[in-house]
Amino acid sequence: MDGFKSLLGAGNVLTAPQDIAPHAVDWRGQQGAMPAAVVRPGTTEQAAGVLRLAAEYGMRVVPHGGRTGLSGAAIPQAGEAPVLVVSMERMNRIRLLDPLDMSIAVDAGITVQAVQEAAREAGRYFPLSFGAQGTAQIGGALSTNAGGINTIRYGNARDLVLGLEVVLPDGRVLDDMRRIRKDNTGYALRHLYLGAEGTLGLITGASLKLFPALRTRETAFLSVPSPHHALRLLARMQDSGADLVAFELMDSHLVELTVGYVPGLRLPVPLTTPWCVIIEAGSPHPSAPVRELMEAALAEGIEAGEAIDVMLAESEQARSMIWRIRESAPEASRSTGPAVPTDTAVPVSVVPDFLDAVLGFAGANWPGMRVGAMGHLGDGNIHISLHGPHDMPRDQWLAVAGGFAEGVNALAVERGGSFSAEHGIGITKLKGMTRFKNPLALSLMRRIKAALDPAGIMNPGKVLPPG
Amino acid sequence: MDGFKSLLGAGNVLTAPQDIAPHAVDWRGQQGAMPAAVVRPGTTEQAAGVLRLAAEYGMRVVPHGGRTGLSGAAIPQAGEAPVLVVSMERMNRIRLLDPLDMSIAVDAGITVQAVQEAAREAGRYFPLSFGAQGTAQIGGALSTNAGGINTIRYGNARDLVLGLEVVLPDGRVLDDMRRIRKDNTGYALRHLYLGAEGTLGLITGASLKLFPALRTRETAFLSVPSPHHALRLLARMQDSGADLVAFELMDSHLVELTVGYVPGLRLPVPLTTPWCVIIEAGSPHPSAPVRELMEAALAEGIEAGEAIDVMLAESEQARSMIWRIRESAPEASRSTGPAVPTDTAVPVSVVPDFLDAVLGFAGANWPGMRVGAMGHLGDGNIHISLHGPHDMPRDQWLAVAGGFAEGVNALAVERGGSFSAEHGIGITKLKGMTRFKNPLALSLMRRIKAALDPAGIMNPGKVLPPG
Repeated sequence: MDGFKSLLGAGNVLTAPQDIAPHAVDWRGQQGAMPAAVVRPGTTEQAAGVLRLAAEYGMRVVPHGGRTGLSGAAIPQAGEAPVLVVSMERMNRIRLLDPLDMSIAVDAGITVQAVQEAAREAGRYFPLSFGAQGTAQIGGALSTNAGGINTIRYGNARDLVLGLEVVLPDGRVLDDMRRIRKDNTGYALRHLYLGAEGTLGLITGASLKLFPALRTRETAFLSVPSPHHALRLLARMQDSGADLVAFELMDSHLVELTVGYVPGLRLPVPLTTPWCVIIEAGSPHPSAPVRELMEAALAEGIEAGEAIDVMLAESEQARSMIWRIRESAPEASRSTGPAVPTDTAVPVSVVPDFLDAVLGFAGANWPGMRVGAMGHLGDGNIHISLHGPHDMPRDQWLAVAGGFAEGVNALAVERGGSFSAEHGIGITKLKGMTRFKNPLALSLMRRIKAALDPAGIMNPGKVLPPG
Repeated sequence: MDGFKSLLGAGNVLTAPQDIAPHAVDWRGQQGAMPAAVVRPGTTEQAAGVLRLAAEYGMRVVPHGGRTGLSGAAIPQAGEAPVLVVSMERMNRIRLLDPLDMSIAVDAGITVQAVQEAAREAGRYFPLSFGAQGTAQIGGALSTNAGGINTIRYGNARDLVLGLEVVLPDGRVLDDMRRIRKDNTGYALRHLYLGAEGTLGLITGASLKLFPALRTRETAFLSVPSPHHALRLLARMQDSGADLVAFELMDSHLVELTVGYVPGLRLPVPLTTPWCVIIEAGSPHPSAPVRELMEAALAEGIEAGEAIDVMLAESEQARSMIWRIRESAPEASRSTGPAVPTDTAVPVSVVPDFLDAVLGFAGANWPGMRVGAMGHLGDGNIHISLHGPHDMPRDQWLAVAGGFAEGVNALAVERGGSFSAEHGIGITKLKGMTRFKNPLALSLMRRIKAALDPAGIMNPGKVLPPG
């Protein structure tokens, strides 16, 4: 460890069991192997030095951002070589914010929320947004190509990147921290590191796109007869001229449950149908008639039977209430008992048929058990969970209902969908890779891993199943 | 050739010199080596068979789309192995158009314009748009990651792709023709083939994003004092609430020249400043107040001195006149004599300083010669040319002024820019790769080429400089 200590200072090389133990576990409580050490570089040069030394010492490297991932990509795995956790928390600076250029360059260890706030202070908008954003770091969000609720308008994390800085497994630094919007000079290397979950290199910096701040936002909560109706309403809203930034679907039982669970929440509309929708549109201009465009389209939607009851938020308070229902739903749902979660995507127009199939599958195999569904209808990514009896321990429910996730994944893949839409593979979905991933794509991935990390140093055991 | 003939039918295997000669040259007249044969697969299976046979016969493969590229990527190069041109013209079908899903799946040999038209008929919009769109094929446009005028709103070609079908150099088919918007199941293989100019595989199909049709469009032509003023106006327009789909910059001399060159064109505004701007905004809703939002922002811009004279088109005819000026400018410019073209991008906020530097460089080295500038200020991609005397032959002018392109490229790269923003590398920019490309990025590209095309079959001599 002396090499790391002289490089980083002794305070940034943790080896005592009580110091490194938190780095063997992620925020879902998944337990991994104890790393040999946790190091905290403060600069790109130090990060490069760390990887050079790790290669020299024959260590394996596990990058750590905010450890908010849901697939265990940050969990160290036991192996023959000692594991070095590289924690990016000290690399949390904004390098450059250029409002005219609509871009921000940051260290990888800055939180997603800190980037949002810096953009807001400059009159700009950074759209990446998801539940863990106060803890999740940019480097981790890019490594898992995070999604969230705004992808219908702004794309996934990879779509927000203009440039990247990556330390390669041998310690060399790939400096592609440019902020240009067009560059056709060879292979799109950046896109390999985005979404690679740290298995090809260590992301240390990124240039990110900003957007005009939204000065008008209109948010509606609706009851809808079915996902089929919601889909037609989506098309109608997309044609409305109001720029949609979110289109979320939730089952009404989950809405009711959430409103009962969180003090102070009220039902925005009577729940007379089994499904609800949240729609948000916005504009950079404070007096853009977003409300009028939405009202007109919603009126047409009601006329056509696509929506039943509608509340268009009249105040920021009402708007915030709508979003609190959406954001509190996962926790409210967990409070009712154990659940088997999924993270699938199908083509947007296939979502209603897919949901029908999932409900049929669940009803046939686990009759009477609650299926919770919420997600991003606008991009086809619905999170569906099967909930067990309130008092059943989680392990027992997983034993009873573990087949649910695999069954839902199969139903998605059969429909041209994905078994991991936004959470990545990590370790928890390695079996899915073996069962569902196109075998030719998997073999190409192995070739790329061998080409870019020939010694197998980076985040071993993740993303690529053994074989 | 018998293998190809039994696979495709004799009519789709061209070997007679008069039949294959057109495939040795691209539309700019660049001459390449004669291929051994030109084959025309009609299906993905046939294309796969062609590549299997080519590998077996030890041939090199040059994919041909519409051959409208500007960097010579489709030009066969002489080498030790015989060259097989695979022309995609027969694979021109629409496989699936799903308006509710906002997606279209097509063969790679369909023209860009045919995709636009199919989308339009379905009430949808396919935004990829550039001069050669009537001839250029989707496969070629994706292989060069084409840009064009709408990238400020919709991104480059790669951003429009949901799924891809690629025949690998060994004839296996990577079927990733899905149309889902979120999928985090491993490395982004698709992005390697997009922009690879046919050096890693043969694109045979693509699933593409569609967007709501724009039912309102407002287009303005303005004189502006300088690119610095244009940049501030861009930020103002982005905050206006009107959804910008284009923000183009042209020098006034070029505008004047174009209006004089094309019969029927008139100057939209008096040319009292050295620069002009074209702005277009749109909305899917026919009664969205795009015009009011633009008028308000333009009035503020005039007040702030960012624009002098403004014409906001009052009719479709006036709008079309504005765009004809922009579209005819390259041809009008060429009519005045020989030119050295460039295709650089810099960060958007750096464009004004970059243009100052280019004008200074040109004035110091080629005094009195005209510098023509037009391009996409909204994404930092300005095409700048140095024009020679009317009667000077092109070769002679290139000998005199050839250093212009390299100088402009260096000025862009010094400012964090690209020496090939949207035209790719092909063969004409290989020297730029050697001089300007990050050497570590270049070495990673070579590793990827070796991993995915170990026998060096695909489009040899392109993109990667010898070394």
